[in-house]
Amino acid sequence: MTYTFKIEHTRIPKQKPATDQLGFGKIFTDHMFILDYTEGQGWHDGRIVPYQPILLDPSAMVFHYGQTVFEGMKAYITVNGEVSLFRPERNFARLNASNARLCIPTIDEELALEALKQLVKLDRDWIPTAENTSLYIRPFIIATEPYLGVSPSKKYQFIIIMSPVGSYYAEGINPVKILVEKQYVRAVAGGTGEAKTGGNYASSLKAQEVAAKEGYAQTLWLDGRENEYVEEVGSMNIFFKINGTVVTPALNGSILPGITRDSMLQVLRKHNIPVQERRISITEIIEAHKQGTLEESFGTGTAAVISPIGQLKFEGTEYVINNGEIGEVAQLLYDTLTGIQYGKLEDVYSWTVIVK
Amino acid sequence: MTYTFKIEHTRIPKQKPATDQLGFGKIFTDHMFILDYTEGQGWHDGRIVPYQPILLDPSAMVFHYGQTVFEGMKAYITVNGEVSLFRPERNFARLNASNARLCIPTIDEELALEALKQLVKLDRDWIPTAENTSLYIRPFIIATEPYLGVSPSKKYQFIIIMSPVGSYYAEGINPVKILVEKQYVRAVAGGTGEAKTGGNYASSLKAQEVAAKEGYAQTLWLDGRENEYVEEVGSMNIFFKINGTVVTPALNGSILPGITRDSMLQVLRKHNIPVQERRISITEIIEAHKQGTLEESFGTGTAAVISPIGQLKFEGTEYVINNGEIGEVAQLLYDTLTGIQYGKLEDVYSWTVIVK
Repeated sequence: MTYTFKIEHTRIPKQKPATDQLGFGKIFTDHMFILDYTEGQGWHDGRIVPYQPILLDPSAMVFHYGQTVFEGMKAYITVNGEVSLFRPERNFARLNASNARLCIPTIDEELALEALKQLVKLDRDWIPTAENTSLYIRPFIIATEPYLGVSPSKKYQFIIIMSPVGSYYAEGINPVKILVEKQYVRAVAGGTGEAKTGGNYASSLKAQEVAAKEGYAQTLWLDGRENEYVEEVGSMNIFFKINGTVVTPALNGSILPGITRDSMLQVLRKHNIPVQERRISITEIIEAHKQGTLEESFGTGTAAVISPIGQLKFEGTEYVINNGEIGEVAQLLYDTLTGIQYGKLEDVYSWTVIVK
Repeated sequence: MTYTFKIEHTRIPKQKPATDQLGFGKIFTDHMFILDYTEGQGWHDGRIVPYQPILLDPSAMVFHYGQTVFEGMKAYITVNGEVSLFRPERNFARLNASNARLCIPTIDEELALEALKQLVKLDRDWIPTAENTSLYIRPFIIATEPYLGVSPSKKYQFIIIMSPVGSYYAEGINPVKILVEKQYVRAVAGGTGEAKTGGNYASSLKAQEVAAKEGYAQTLWLDGRENEYVEEVGSMNIFFKINGTVVTPALNGSILPGITRDSMLQVLRKHNIPVQERRISITEIIEAHKQGTLEESFGTGTAAVISPIGQLKFEGTEYVINNGEIGEVAQLLYDTLTGIQYGKLEDVYSWTVIVK
């Protein structure tokens, strides 16, 4: 099926940033995609327009009741000079899963992917080319009906914006120190933890602030029922290598089903590295550390691909993991994913989508 | 202390709605209040301007990470023709409590109250005068920094908008049917349940949809840890009268500290009606119903004041309360609060703030 979108080109192209000024999520490309939803009419009027502010009534529901969902993915310039997306169809499928939880009407995933391809093609020159740089892509949906009643909105906007981003590890992969959080909870069974929605991130800010004050980079979240089972780290999924087996919390409804997480699991299985998706308690982690079998730990997500954990602090005690260095498995996974993303390795998993 | 705000009057006053077209939260007055926050500068540039759309970058954090808080209160025209606010200083205190949980800088509560008074005075003619109508007031704060990093915003807007609203009970107080929710969870200890923030409301929509499909008006929320202890009903606090004693869940961190709830407790104590704030399980409620001691139940909040519960459905069984009629205590509380709000009863609690 072919989708045709109206395209309004910018008249004032912005200056592109130098590689060393990229950072993350502060600079945006020349264009954006917008799709409107109106009850009774469905999603309509998909269009590419110059990057521009959004005009909303102050009573628009997004300002009051948090009915939002979003996604995060990247476009890469491969070593062959092609434009590559990494499993974008999975992001739009997850966006629809989030929509279902938040009572937002589902989008046409094919249409969304086609819109993204056209937008990326139009702003192709914004994809940075220096090593390990990329174009961060942020599709999101906001409830726009001007109404203060607590009910699903009758109007929405689906928007895609894009931001050129620098190398996450400009100075080499640096393992981080993580604080295990016992007071604040990110999500609970029956809540919105497995949806990518604003409220999950808003509720995480306080614990993040506490961790930062103590000199820790991120929070390790435990479950909301028993404050005992490991869920995520910051806004990443988490993995542990214990006595040769890689363990990650099973998707239980309160954990985000990460696309990087899923990709890691596939790579691990392909390499015949023992892997388990199961419930894992903080007590088990600490016990493994005491017995010398906690060999590695790392977070996984779109931004960093892998973020090795060099130290955990739990109930006042610090536990150093793998001498605070990146482990072999983390390095293998990082090299494999980035290798495929930048076209340096053969994509035996059929993950990449080349934008022609 | 005196606060002076720049006032820009509307040039095109809108037509005011007829009493029978008021509804809730769809019509807004001629003016709004805006206060900006910029890191390093603090809150600044408080101003009253014509009611108008907000212009925000599509990367503004409110669209992505749900960093929002809000309040809800009302202005009334009393039987003496005065303009009365009900405990507004409590709303701004709670707004600041929500701010603290959401890592939003606190506001000057005196300034906020003064801004509200000036705004209400300016749009005084928008307060409807028909019986049990009022002006609904919505102060809210949104994170406006254009940045996709997950961290507290460095820019915010505090805004007050106002909406004339009709009588909640135009056809008399009508008890509602409530579905006890076992699958979805509104909030959990350690989460954001006691803050008035968008994410709590976004996460409630799905259960509300399920309840509506089964013909129920609202969801009765149980706690997120054990799915056993009663927390709230819809977006109201909940009360039960069991064997002559009025019981409401104690504020435990995941329950909204309702200002109507607090007012009800004061009225009950003044009338020497036995009252308990404590943990209360759904098992106890059902048991009391079976023994014939569940005499009343009702929700309390700004919109309805009191919403009597005529029927509970739990695990497939329906439990009718007080023959589906409003109870004596609910009626007393409703009459007392609305009596004070509209100046029909002496305000022995010093709750009302008259706008001169």
